[in-house]
Amino acid sequence: MNRYRVVVAIRLKPEVLDPAGQAVAGVLDQMGMTGVESVRLGRLVDLEVAADGPESARALAEAAARRLLANPVLETFEVAVEP
Amino acid sequence: MNRYRVVVAIRLKPEVLDPAGQAVAGVLDQMGMTGVESVRLGRLVDLEVAADGPESARALAEAAARRLLANPVLETFEVAVEP
Repeated sequence: MNRYRVVVAIRLKPEVLDPAGQAVAGVLDQMGMTGVESVRLGRLVDLEVAADGPESARALAEAAARRLLANPVLETFEVAVEP
Repeated sequence: MNRYRVVVAIRLKPEVLDPAGQAVAGVLDQMGMTGVESVRLGRLVDLEVAADGPESARALAEAAARRLLANPVLETFEVAVEP
């Protein structure tokens, strides 16, 4: 068994509104950071996974994301196994 | 002015406890995904930034992260400007 660091990036689907992100964009604008035109808030989940190899670490992280970490109706996720 | 997509990844500092992440790890264990040994929850902020070039887009995103998006006492952040 080796140990792998796996990063799961979870984002709202593009068609899902993000009022919290819009609120952050409004505050940045009020603070003078007017170049920021859009803000979308997502989640980052760092996993430490014990697995035989990077492919099984990825499979386990994908199962965790699909079954628990992400909401498949509203969100998409990407899994990256660190070298 | 060009428009850049900038990703800000915000994580708890290693020395900060993450009880929510520990709870997720416990649930994954109960669900049979016993290979996941540690879970740490972070945040992902996707920005669209209007700027003269990638370096000024990065500088604006770093200012936004430092001044508003991240809590510098508890969190660290990384900024990546997409090509």
